[in-house]
Amino acid sequence: MSTMEQLVSAKRAWSALQSASGNVRNDALREMANALRAHTEDILSANHLDMEAARGHISEVMLDRLHLNASRVEGMAQGIEQVAQLPDPLGRVLREERRPNALRIERVSVPLGLVAIIYESRPNVTADAAALCIKSGNACMLRGGKEAFRSANAIVRALREGLQRAGLPEELVQLAQDSSRQSATDLMTAVGLVDLLIPRGGAGLIRACTQNAKVPCIQTGTGICHIYVDASADLDMALNIIENAKTSRPSVCNAEEVCLVHRVIAPTFLPMLRERLTSAQARQGRHEVELRVDERAARYIDGTPAGAEDFDTEFLDYILAVGIVDDVDAAIRHIAAHSTGHSEAIIAQDEAAQARFIAQVDSAAVYINASTRFTDGGEFGLGCEMGISTQKLHARGPMGLEELTSYKYVIHGSGQIR
Amino acid sequence: MSTMEQLVSAKRAWSALQSASGNVRNDALREMANALRAHTEDILSANHLDMEAARGHISEVMLDRLHLNASRVEGMAQGIEQVAQLPDPLGRVLREERRPNALRIERVSVPLGLVAIIYESRPNVTADAAALCIKSGNACMLRGGKEAFRSANAIVRALREGLQRAGLPEELVQLAQDSSRQSATDLMTAVGLVDLLIPRGGAGLIRACTQNAKVPCIQTGTGICHIYVDASADLDMALNIIENAKTSRPSVCNAEEVCLVHRVIAPTFLPMLRERLTSAQARQGRHEVELRVDERAARYIDGTPAGAEDFDTEFLDYILAVGIVDDVDAAIRHIAAHSTGHSEAIIAQDEAAQARFIAQVDSAAVYINASTRFTDGGEFGLGCEMGISTQKLHARGPMGLEELTSYKYVIHGSGQIR
Repeated sequence: MSTMEQLVSAKRAWSALQSASGNVRNDALREMANALRAHTEDILSANHLDMEAARGHISEVMLDRLHLNASRVEGMAQGIEQVAQLPDPLGRVLREERRPNALRIERVSVPLGLVAIIYESRPNVTADAAALCIKSGNACMLRGGKEAFRSANAIVRALREGLQRAGLPEELVQLAQDSSRQSATDLMTAVGLVDLLIPRGGAGLIRACTQNAKVPCIQTGTGICHIYVDASADLDMALNIIENAKTSRPSVCNAEEVCLVHRVIAPTFLPMLRERLTSAQARQGRHEVELRVDERAARYIDGTPAGAEDFDTEFLDYILAVGIVDDVDAAIRHIAAHSTGHSEAIIAQDEAAQARFIAQVDSAAVYINASTRFTDGGEFGLGCEMGISTQKLHARGPMGLEELTSYKYVIHGSGQIR
Repeated sequence: MSTMEQLVSAKRAWSALQSASGNVRNDALREMANALRAHTEDILSANHLDMEAARGHISEVMLDRLHLNASRVEGMAQGIEQVAQLPDPLGRVLREERRPNALRIERVSVPLGLVAIIYESRPNVTADAAALCIKSGNACMLRGGKEAFRSANAIVRALREGLQRAGLPEELVQLAQDSSRQSATDLMTAVGLVDLLIPRGGAGLIRACTQNAKVPCIQTGTGICHIYVDASADLDMALNIIENAKTSRPSVCNAEEVCLVHRVIAPTFLPMLRERLTSAQARQGRHEVELRVDERAARYIDGTPAGAEDFDTEFLDYILAVGIVDDVDAAIRHIAAHSTGHSEAIIAQDEAAQARFIAQVDSAAVYINASTRFTDGGEFGLGCEMGISTQKLHARGPMGLEELTSYKYVIHGSGQIR
């Protein structure tokens, strides 16, 4: 089937899911988990072929992300079972009003319809994304990276078997059968079929969606996260937070990329920062962080001289851009000019500076005295995550089940006319 | 200034509004209302010139929409004062969670940023839209129809004077200085500047936005609204509701365009419907409604034979397409295929049919036993309205102040790392 035929088929199947009860959807999730377990061998054989084909063509890190074993398949199954246990995002009465004319107006959460997800090569995203869609009453069209195609196909085959066992149409979960650029473009332009497109990937994919998408689309992921160390900061706390935000997992979008330091504490703090991030003793075996320092910071510490682009780069690596600012307002202005709107933190004891930072910084997550690494559906208590939105419409920050729903107004009358 | 320069200027000014208190924003609204009153003569002179230029080029109905007098200007001023009295949509804590690691995570409503509105020739939309934006903390870029340009310019001059008196930058409210297609395209493609684009106009404008917009955009307005009369309907109630939904104001988007009748009651009900909508006696001076009847309905009543396109047309006129369906499921399927997702109603006493209709019809507003004409911000108790969204992302149905906001997560820590 072509991508368009798959979309039509998924949308048609959706009417069976649209009004399925929470119990039916949870049963389907449990059947999907069981089917994954039952088909572990098929999935591992398919994954073996993917690994063979990819070896030598992609990095070791990417190969590891692609690799499945029995315990990773079991992890996927358990992940689906956890989604089944989350509260039902559908049928919530978000607002209820009785009007003077006795109309009762309810605003009720409902599924979006057909959600399309473009992602890269981690096979587990296939199971995660499908589970979140079914739980939230949405049909889904998955379009993964070509390296993981055989694995994803085997996973989807199992998931569809689970759907059927629960009495739901297997067409609710679709995997694009070609991983060409054309199939991505088809998803971006399927007006009237795709109700939400979620691109999960690098800056290039996000840009392509912004430029080409005619369907509603949520930008996710890119994070140039800033930490501002105020004159009033507890410097030890600042060091701990920056070390964590930069080095605990530099490849993720909530890792710190830029550190801004108040000029008053720069002479004291910058040498401490350098010591913490670069000295072998302090590092205790961790990778050394390369500091890219602006001209003012270079007066106090050694480092690579920063070019302008270093303050606009998502390094995703052991690299940190370091600059000096005159005060909290200068930090806010710098962030407004250079941030991607993901996560920013202020380290400060001064409450006026904290309040100013919170009010003025226009990002999905704004932290006081904590690491930016907490921007995550699980850490925020959502129980799951479909990606992190860096746009302001519909959903912002970690997207959980509620962010995969819309609402409609249901109006109960007894013959009212206007 | 070019459209792009205006956008840059508005976005820069926004930082002053972003954290302005509710009191400051309400004071600004009151000053805007007063300035409108003070400049009534300027506004009426400008409107006189617009009227002179338009006469002979646009219809009498359009001329009436364009026309201002002292009481209409006073009405605009009072409208702004009413917006000032609505609850503040900003700073609401939408969710609050304390995590096991003692992080306190708040989800707080915040403004979107810069909202652009493309609209047609009613001068009062200029004042309404600007007031809703300022109340919700947003800068706004207005792009009206060229027939109303002088009037809109005079109104915006007054509004900006009001902003300045309240200590806010006048650049927060901008009127595009040219009404060419290019200025609309500029708004649709100003990625990073325009946070939300709201096209308020006909199907052509909405389509142009779907096709060309690179910025987040909300589809509004087009309404092919259906009323389904079930076998269990109270037929007198059905007649009253249909008469109201079709004839009380046929030019608006929540008017009925299509009537679907259960086959069992068709022989009885259709002649009653024809009598109510077409007989001079029943009409009491109202305009006669032209019925476009499908083949099955034509067995029971006279009418214009309906072509296929009649079930896909927003007539905005005294025309009603009438068809027979086998049951509530057939009605639901017809609506799924032909609706624009605005408003649909079921007239039924049978609760199973009502429940099925509510669950399966995927439109912004779904009515039981009431007229579709109630889909309106005021009637829904929102206190105001920026348009009616027919899409599922971010806002659905009437958009009030809350729908002009986004949210951000504010995380209060004490040194937490992950």
